[in-house]
Amino acid sequence: MIYTAGCAQLAPKIGQIEQNVDEAAEAIRHLGHAGADLVVLPELASSGYVFESKDEARALAQPADGPALGAWVRAAQDAATVVVAGFAELGDDGNVYNSAAVLDGDGVIAVYRKTHLWDREKLVFARGSVVPPVVDTRVGRIGVVICYDLEFPENARSLALRGAELIAVPTNWPVFPRPIGERPPEVLNVMAIARFNRVFLVAADRVGTERGQEWTGGSAIVDCDGWPLAEAQHDNTQTLLAEIDPARARDKQWTEFADLFGDRRPELYGALIDKPSDVITQHTPISRRK
Amino acid sequence: MIYTAGCAQLAPKIGQIEQNVDEAAEAIRHLGHAGADLVVLPELASSGYVFESKDEARALAQPADGPALGAWVRAAQDAATVVVAGFAELGDDGNVYNSAAVLDGDGVIAVYRKTHLWDREKLVFARGSVVPPVVDTRVGRIGVVICYDLEFPENARSLALRGAELIAVPTNWPVFPRPIGERPPEVLNVMAIARFNRVFLVAADRVGTERGQEWTGGSAIVDCDGWPLAEAQHDNTQTLLAEIDPARARDKQWTEFADLFGDRRPELYGALIDKPSDVITQHTPISRRK
Repeated sequence: MIYTAGCAQLAPKIGQIEQNVDEAAEAIRHLGHAGADLVVLPELASSGYVFESKDEARALAQPADGPALGAWVRAAQDAATVVVAGFAELGDDGNVYNSAAVLDGDGVIAVYRKTHLWDREKLVFARGSVVPPVVDTRVGRIGVVICYDLEFPENARSLALRGAELIAVPTNWPVFPRPIGERPPEVLNVMAIARFNRVFLVAADRVGTERGQEWTGGSAIVDCDGWPLAEAQHDNTQTLLAEIDPARARDKQWTEFADLFGDRRPELYGALIDKPSDVITQHTPISRRK
Repeated sequence: MIYTAGCAQLAPKIGQIEQNVDEAAEAIRHLGHAGADLVVLPELASSGYVFESKDEARALAQPADGPALGAWVRAAQDAATVVVAGFAELGDDGNVYNSAAVLDGDGVIAVYRKTHLWDREKLVFARGSVVPPVVDTRVGRIGVVICYDLEFPENARSLALRGAELIAVPTNWPVFPRPIGERPPEVLNVMAIARFNRVFLVAADRVGTERGQEWTGGSAIVDCDGWPLAEAQHDNTQTLLAEIDPARARDKQWTEFADLFGDRRPELYGALIDKPSDVITQHTPISRRK
């Protein structure tokens, strides 16, 4: 089934939960009415990102059955769309997580807690202990990672191997310096990951400056050959739409004799799991002739 | 120690071993005299690529102590440089391998046999069974992969985790269609891999058309932030040079609280080793409220 993926590049304001949640819900409705069967929103779309303290984050966090996700479920119902959106989650265990929910008009299907916390997030959030999920939805198998997770190619690879056809990436990319004329490096990563795994990616980034932190505004929808179907301008909120044919992502056959996953050699990839120090190798000379 | 890496984009002619070996040796001398401490040459630089049969490949293959690598060792000695170069290897076991040698003026240090064979290579070569090597050289720790190996991010990751500061990539990239104005997708891969792993990469590609196969000519030297230091024009033989500071690649610390390798979660990467079918997951709804 060919479907339409949408992506909203927003500018959440730190601490203004009701306004942030409303704007995200509005984006869901807008994209749904524009034809999106899947909508991806940024990381921490409910709360903003640059917390001054763990207490501030806790005060802005909600459980998965709280009002923020409730509002997005209602919007998803109105818009008849599947949604992947980031929010600050207050866990049953009392911890605060940087999470993403997969939901539709019937409710929340899955919540993923970011497993790779970037920089000072470690001072604010507990890190998730469950592998990024592949979620069966009415638009097929959606994998979910959040922002820094994507810098570890292991995560997207794991999702693709487990059957993800599209990877949704709620993100807040801080601006990094880049040469003039180049795409943001994170967009290049998204393109390469799409091609490595032959999956579609939808990255929903944010814009604006928050407590001195400038954001990239690098939202993009990328096809399973690695080429952008839609790319955001970097300086304003906006929405993107693109057509997705998940059957293309399910077909990993490059050529008659080349298969992207069949050609893998997992027996040679042990260094990815073992401690690096265990596997440093140095080859001995096979010939030394002066 | 800051050093200079060089890369030669050549146009080997199928079957013309002596001429190919001489031109490769000439490129080593030229780059060495231009200041290169490391020279990377294309895949199968001795033999050409588009073999008509296994027998043709066998007739063009040489052992690691044969005349091709001997000529390159002499050139490396003249040029006082380390060389990574692709060649068709006749193994002690009677098999023909698509291999790369790491050598210097003192001899051959290591030979790597390509572990991920592309397409019809499977009809011609035996595949290697030993993980891509990290080789200690006078310019530091060099990792080696060949062409299609690089499409599997596991390989470069493994090399970086085992201490490679620079990954040398002898390659023959067949032309794939790409949108106008875009880099070859393989160059984007190289850039992303450099950034994912904070390593330098030198990819030596080839040009020309061989038995109907057109080559990309996408040679590039990329820094450990993922940005090209030098990129080849796609339509002619040429050499590239760039300065490498391997200390930058050894430092995986992004920020005060973010460490590229320290932030990995190997305990969550099991799907990379296990069979994919073992790990497909489907999350159960955590709430369903109409």
